[in-house]
Amino acid sequence: MEFSALLTSAGINIGVCVLFLSLYSVLRKQPHNFGVYFGRRLAEEKFQRQDDYFSFERLLPTAGWIVKAYWCTEEEIRQVAGLDSVVFLRLFIFSIRIFSITSLVCIFGVLPVNYHGKEMTHQHIPAESLNVFTIANIVEESPKLWVHCVALYIITISACILLYNEYKYISRKRLAHITGGPPNPSHFTVLVRSIPRSENELLDDTIRNFFVNYHGSSYLSHQMIYRKGHFQKFVDRAERAYRRFVRVRLSVSERNGRSSLSRCGVCGVKASSFQLYRNKFIEAKKSDLTNPEVVEAQKNCPGALVFFKTRYAAVVASQVLQSSNPMLWVTDLSPEPRDVYWSNLWIPYRQIWLRKLATLAASVVFMFVFIIPVAFVQSMMQLEQLKKMFPNLRGLLNKSFFARVVTGYLPSVVLLLSLYTVPPLMMLFSSIEGSISRSGRKRSACLKILFFTVWNVFFVNVLSGSVLNQLNVFTRPKDMPSMLAELVPKQATFFITYVLTSGWASLCSEILQVYNLVYNFFSKFICCCKQNTEYVYSFPYHTEVPKVLLFNLLGFTFSIMAPLILPFLLVYFCLGYLVYRNQILNVYYPKYEMGGKLWPIMHNTIVFSLVLTQVIALGVFTIKHAPVATGFTILLLVGTVLFNEYCRHRFSRIFEAYSAQDVIELDRDDEQSGRMHEIHQHLLDAYSQTPPGEGSSRAGSQVPIELIMEDPAQEASESSQELCDTVQEVSDAINEHITEEKVHSV
Amino acid sequence: MEFSALLTSAGINIGVCVLFLSLYSVLRKQPHNFGVYFGRRLAEEKFQRQDDYFSFERLLPTAGWIVKAYWCTEEEIRQVAGLDSVVFLRLFIFSIRIFSITSLVCIFGVLPVNYHGKEMTHQHIPAESLNVFTIANIVEESPKLWVHCVALYIITISACILLYNEYKYISRKRLAHITGGPPNPSHFTVLVRSIPRSENELLDDTIRNFFVNYHGSSYLSHQMIYRKGHFQKFVDRAERAYRRFVRVRLSVSERNGRSSLSRCGVCGVKASSFQLYRNKFIEAKKSDLTNPEVVEAQKNCPGALVFFKTRYAAVVASQVLQSSNPMLWVTDLSPEPRDVYWSNLWIPYRQIWLRKLATLAASVVFMFVFIIPVAFVQSMMQLEQLKKMFPNLRGLLNKSFFARVVTGYLPSVVLLLSLYTVPPLMMLFSSIEGSISRSGRKRSACLKILFFTVWNVFFVNVLSGSVLNQLNVFTRPKDMPSMLAELVPKQATFFITYVLTSGWASLCSEILQVYNLVYNFFSKFICCCKQNTEYVYSFPYHTEVPKVLLFNLLGFTFSIMAPLILPFLLVYFCLGYLVYRNQILNVYYPKYEMGGKLWPIMHNTIVFSLVLTQVIALGVFTIKHAPVATGFTILLLVGTVLFNEYCRHRFSRIFEAYSAQDVIELDRDDEQSGRMHEIHQHLLDAYSQTPPGEGSSRAGSQVPIELIMEDPAQEASESSQELCDTVQEVSDAINEHITEEKVHSV
Repeated sequence: MEFSALLTSAGINIGVCVLFLSLYSVLRKQPHNFGVYFGRRLAEEKFQRQDDYFSFERLLPTAGWIVKAYWCTEEEIRQVAGLDSVVFLRLFIFSIRIFSITSLVCIFGVLPVNYHGKEMTHQHIPAESLNVFTIANIVEESPKLWVHCVALYIITISACILLYNEYKYISRKRLAHITGGPPNPSHFTVLVRSIPRSENELLDDTIRNFFVNYHGSSYLSHQMIYRKGHFQKFVDRAERAYRRFVRVRLSVSERNGRSSLSRCGVCGVKASSFQLYRNKFIEAKKSDLTNPEVVEAQKNCPGALVFFKTRYAAVVASQVLQSSNPMLWVTDLSPEPRDVYWSNLWIPYRQIWLRKLATLAASVVFMFVFIIPVAFVQSMMQLEQLKKMFPNLRGLLNKSFFARVVTGYLPSVVLLLSLYTVPPLMMLFSSIEGSISRSGRKRSACLKILFFTVWNVFFVNVLSGSVLNQLNVFTRPKDMPSMLAELVPKQATFFITYVLTSGWASLCSEILQVYNLVYNFFSKFICCCKQNTEYVYSFPYHTEVPKVLLFNLLGFTFSIMAPLILPFLLVYFCLGYLVYRNQILNVYYPKYEMGGKLWPIMHNTIVFSLVLTQVIALGVFTIKHAPVATGFTILLLVGTVLFNEYCRHRFSRIFEAYSAQDVIELDRDDEQSGRMHEIHQHLLDAYSQTPPGEGSSRAGSQVPIELIMEDPAQEASESSQELCDTVQEVSDAINEHITEEKVHSV
Repeated sequence: MEFSALLTSAGINIGVCVLFLSLYSVLRKQPHNFGVYFGRRLAEEKFQRQDDYFSFERLLPTAGWIVKAYWCTEEEIRQVAGLDSVVFLRLFIFSIRIFSITSLVCIFGVLPVNYHGKEMTHQHIPAESLNVFTIANIVEESPKLWVHCVALYIITISACILLYNEYKYISRKRLAHITGGPPNPSHFTVLVRSIPRSENELLDDTIRNFFVNYHGSSYLSHQMIYRKGHFQKFVDRAERAYRRFVRVRLSVSERNGRSSLSRCGVCGVKASSFQLYRNKFIEAKKSDLTNPEVVEAQKNCPGALVFFKTRYAAVVASQVLQSSNPMLWVTDLSPEPRDVYWSNLWIPYRQIWLRKLATLAASVVFMFVFIIPVAFVQSMMQLEQLKKMFPNLRGLLNKSFFARVVTGYLPSVVLLLSLYTVPPLMMLFSSIEGSISRSGRKRSACLKILFFTVWNVFFVNVLSGSVLNQLNVFTRPKDMPSMLAELVPKQATFFITYVLTSGWASLCSEILQVYNLVYNFFSKFICCCKQNTEYVYSFPYHTEVPKVLLFNLLGFTFSIMAPLILPFLLVYFCLGYLVYRNQILNVYYPKYEMGGKLWPIMHNTIVFSLVLTQVIALGVFTIKHAPVATGFTILLLVGTVLFNEYCRHRFSRIFEAYSAQDVIELDRDDEQSGRMHEIHQHLLDAYSQTPPGEGSSRAGSQVPIELIMEDPAQEASESSQELCDTVQEVSDAINEHITEEKVHSV
C-alpha cells in the first residue's frame, strides 16, 4: 500500500467520524432519543425532561457535550458510575500519556532513521510505499539500530513508571472504596456450598449446627438457597411480569397523568389480569413451608448464605478451610446482593471444576476455529487473489480508487463484523462456567475475549499472512521472535487501517448507539411501546476493555517497527477518552460493582505487550546482526519481567482479599457508632432470592437505602425483548396451568 | 544390542547385587560399623550395644535383616520414622502393585504380539536383537495394535484407581497425624515478617500493639528474631563448640566411665578451654539488653514469632491478609521448632520473590548446561563413534565382551556419576531461595531434582540420540508425539541397562552406605575420632523420591513400547521396598516432619508419566496408521487429565492447610482436659533461636518431652567435618578477639 492509499483511508474515516459526531450532537437533543442517550440519568430520575417544543437550535451540531465530558471530575464519575468506570478511564489516561511519549520519541527519532535507512532516491512522499517508513528499510548491521534500542528503553521505562503509579493509585482508590462506602451486606455474608447431607436432620439444622459449633461467637443467621421447581418458576415469572406492569403503570400515571390502563404494544394483554394470579400463588407458596415437598426441596438445596456478626468473622470464614474434606463446606465471600448470579448458585459445587475445564476447552477450540474467517480477511488483502476469486468484479477492481478501498478498508470491516459474534458466545461460556456473581462472569468473559482478540487479531493476522497452510509456524516457538520480526513490519499497513476502521469507527458507533437508536425508533413509532425509554444497560467492560488493550498492544509492538501507526492511535485514545466519559456519565448505569478488579487484567496485558515488543525487537536485532543491541534488549526483557513480579507481589492481593486491619477498623467504627445492630437487622432482607424487583419494593419501605443499594433501574434493565418473551411465556404457562387443572378436575 | 548382551548386563548386575547384599549382612554385624548401619537406633539409645567379642557367625552372610524389614508394620514405621517414611514406602507399594498388573498384561499380552509383529524367521532368542521385542516390530495398519490400546486402557485405569486409593489413604493418615499427635507448638505459632518500622517506638512494641489491637482476644506473646551480628556469631560458634564437647564428654563418661578429658582427633584443643569463653560471652550478651546497640539491632529485626492462645487463632492469623499493603505484616504458620531454618528467617521478606526467580532461572540454566555430559554418554553408545574417538582402544573394543560392557554398561555408569553433582547444587539453590523451613527446602530441592532428572535422563536421552545438533527438535512441540514414538522404542536398550545399573546398583550402594562406611573406617582407625558413631543422617528424600519416580516414568512409558524392561523394574521396586524399609528402621533419623507433603508431588509426577505414555502411544498409533486406536487414546488422555483435576480438588488442600473443624476440635480437647495452660507456658521456650543443642538441654528439664519433640540426636547430626571446621573457626576467632583486645588496650 502506498502512503496516498493510507491518506485516502484516513480521509474517509475522519469524514465518517466528523459526520457521526455531528449527527450525535443533533440526535441527543431530540427528546424522543433521551432514552437512548441519557439512560443513566433517566434511571436516576435526576434528569429534567424538557418539554417537547421545537427550536431550530435542535438541528445544529454543537460540541457542548465534549466540554461537559471533559470538565467532569474523577470523583463525580466515581460517585455516579462506580470505581470500575474510573479504572476504565484511567486506562485511557495511561494510554494517552504513554503514547504521547512514544509518539514524540518514535515520530521524531525513529521515523526519520527508518526513512533514510537505505541509500535510495526518495520519491514524492505521497507516492512512497509505506514500507519505507518501517524498520524493514534499515540495512543489516546498521549502526542506526541503536536509535531503536534507545527508543525501546525510553518506552519501556516510561511505561513501567506510569504503570506502577497507576497500580498504586488504583489500589488506593480500591481501599478507599472498601472502607469509605456505606455498610455493604456482602461484607457480612459468606456463601456456603456443598453442604453434606445427613439422614437424621434437616439441612437447615445441619447448617445451623455447624456454624454455631465452629463459629458460635460470630454466627448471626443463615438463609438457604432453593433450587426452583417448575411450579415456583411459573410463580416467579408471573410475578415478574405483574410487577413490571404495575411499575410501568405507576410511573406512567405519575408522570403523564394518563389512564392507568396500559397495553403492551405487541400482545395486548391487560396488565391487571396478573393481579389475581399473584395473590393466588403467593398464598400457595406460603402454605408449602409445612409441606413434605419443601423438606424434600431443602435436601436438594445447593447452598446457603450465612450471615456473620462482623466483617472480620465473614472474611475469616471465607478464607479458612472449613472441613478436612475440601469438597465439603466450601466457603466464599458472597457477592453484593445485586451482583449475585442466582441461577449459577443452584449448580452443585462438585460440577464446577468440570464446567471450568469444559468451557476452557471450548474457548480454545473456538479460538482456533475462528482462524478461518481471519484467513479469509487476509486473502482479501491480496488484490490478485481477489480477482481470481471474483472474476466478475475484475473491472471494478482495476479502478484505482476501488482497489484502495478494497485492500485498505474492507478487510478490517469484515474482520470487525465477524468479531461481533464473539462477545455473546464468550459470555455464554462464562455463564456455563458457574461463576457465582455477575461481575465474576463479566470478568471471566473479559479475559476470554481478551485472549481471543490478541490471538485472532494480532497473532493470526501477523503470522498467517494470507496462507492458512503456514499455520505450522505456531508449532516452532523458538523461531517465533525472528519470524515476528520479519512479519510484523509487513503487516503495519493492515493494522493502521484496522486502527482507523475498528478503532475510530467503533467509537462513532459507540457514541451513536446505532442499535439502540434504531430499536428505539422502531419501538416508539411502529410498535408504540412508549415505556422502553427506561431500559438502561450496564457498561460492557467485557467488550470494551479487550478492544482498548488490543490497541495498546498494537501501539507498543509497532512503535519502533512502523511508527506511522502512532498518531492514529493517539487520536483514538483521546477521542475514546471523551466518548467513554460521555457515555459513562449519560448512558450506562452501573448495576454492580467490581471494585476495580479489572485493573490487574489491564496491567498484566500491558506488561505482556511490552514483553512482546521486546521479543520482536530481539528478533529484529538478530536478523539485522546487531548483537550488542540484542544483549541490551535481553537485559530490558529481564527487567520488565522483574517489574511485573514486583507489582504482582506488591499489589495483586489487594484486589483479591480484604485485609484484617481494614475490616476490623470498619467493624469497630460501626460498633462504636451503634450502627451494628441496625445492620444486623437488615442483613436478612438484603439477599432476596426472588427476582430483584420484589426485593427492592419490599426493602424500600424497611431498609435504609444505602445499606441495600438496590437500584431502581435494575428491574428495568432487561431489554423489552425479554419483556415480550416473558409475557408470552406467562400466557403459555397460564394456558398449561388451566389445561392441567382441567385434567385434574376430570 | 542383542538379547545376549542384555543378559550379560543383567548377569553382572545380579552378581554385584548378591555380593553387596551378602557383604552388607556381614558388615552390619561388626560392632565398629554399628554407627553406620544403626544410626537411628543408636540415636534413640534403645539399641543395646553388644560386647565386642568375636564369633565365626559374624562372618557369615545371613538374610535375617530382610525378614525383619518385611515383618515390621506400617504403624511401627510411622512411630519411629514419621509419616514421610510411610508415604515414601507407600510409593513403593503403589509401584509394586501397578507394575505387577502392567507386567502381567504386557509380558503375556503385548510382548508376544510385538515378537510376532512382522512376518520373519526368528533366530534363536539369545541372538535376537532387542528391537524385535519392541513395538517397532509391528507393521503399519496392523490390527494387532488393538492389543496395545487395550493394554494402555488397563494400565491407566488400574493406575488411576490405585492412585486415588493411595491419595485417600495418605490424606487420612495425614489428618490422623495432625489431630493424633502430641500438642505441637508450631500449631500455635505464626511467623511474621516484614514488620513496618516506626520512628517513635521499638519494634517490640510495634508488634505487641499490632497483635493486641487486631487479635487481642487470642494473642499470647511474641518472640523476636534477631539478625546476628559478627560478635553474636562468634559467641554462638564458641558456644556450639563448647556444648558439643561437653556433651561428648558426658556421654563418654556415662557410657565408658573413661576420663572426662577428651581430645579432638585432628586438632587437639582441650574441650574445657571453651568454658571460660562461654561464661564471659553469655554475661556480655545479657548486659546488652539495655544497650542502645540492642535497640539498633531490634530495628534490623527481620521478623517475629507470634504465639496465639489457640490453634484456630494461629491458623486464621496465618491465612488472612493482615495489612492493606500485602508486603507488610506477612504471616505464615511457623514450621516446627526443629524444622525452622533460622538463617533464612534473617533474609528480608522483600528479597524473597527475587531470590525465587533467580534460583528458578539458575536451575533452568543448569538443566540445559547439563545436556553436554548426557550427550557424551549417548555418544558412547555408538561403538563406531567410540572407535573414532579413541583409536588406541580399537583392539579392545573389537572384542565382543568388552564391546558389550562398553555399550551396555558404561554409559549409564558415566551418567550416574555425573548425576551425583546435582543434589548438592539443587539443595544450595533451595537454600538461597529463602524457604523458612528445612522441610520446605528439601521439598523444593526434591522438585528441582525431579524436573532435572526427568528432563536430563529421560527426554534428553530419548530425543537427542547421539547428536547434540538435533536439539532443535525441542522447539517443535507439535511433532513431539510422533518423534517420541519413533525414538522411545529405539532407546529401550539404554533404559533397560539404566534400570540395572542406576536402579539396582544404587540400592546396593544405599544399603552398604559406602561413603559412610569408608569415612567411618578412616575416622575410627586413622583419625581416632571415637565419637563419630553418633552422627545420624535424615532420610535424603530429595534424592530418593525423584529416583523412584523416574523409574515409574520409565516403567509406564516403556510398558507397551518395550515390555522387556518391566521384570527388571519390578525386581527393583521389590528390592527397593525391603532395602528402604531396613534403612528407615535402622539408619536414618527423622529430624523433622513434612507431614506427608511429598505425596502430591509423587501423585502429580505419576499422572504426568501416564499422560506422557498416552502421548507417546498417540504418536505410535498415528505413525502406524491406526486412527480408531488414536481416537480411543485421546479419550483416555482426557479422562486422565480429568481424574487428576478431580484429585487436585478433592485432596490437595488437605496437604496445604489445616481445616477449621480439626483445629477447633483439638483446641476444645485441650481446653477441656486442662492442658491448654500448660501448653501456653511452654510455648515461649519451644522456639530457641540459639542453635538447637542449648534449647534442648534447657527444655529437657522444664518442658514435657512430647510438647517440644526436640530430638537428642539433632545436635549430633552435623558431620564431624563440620565439627573440625568449627573448632578451627573458633580458634581463629579467639585469635582475632585477642588481637582486637590488644589493639583496644593499646
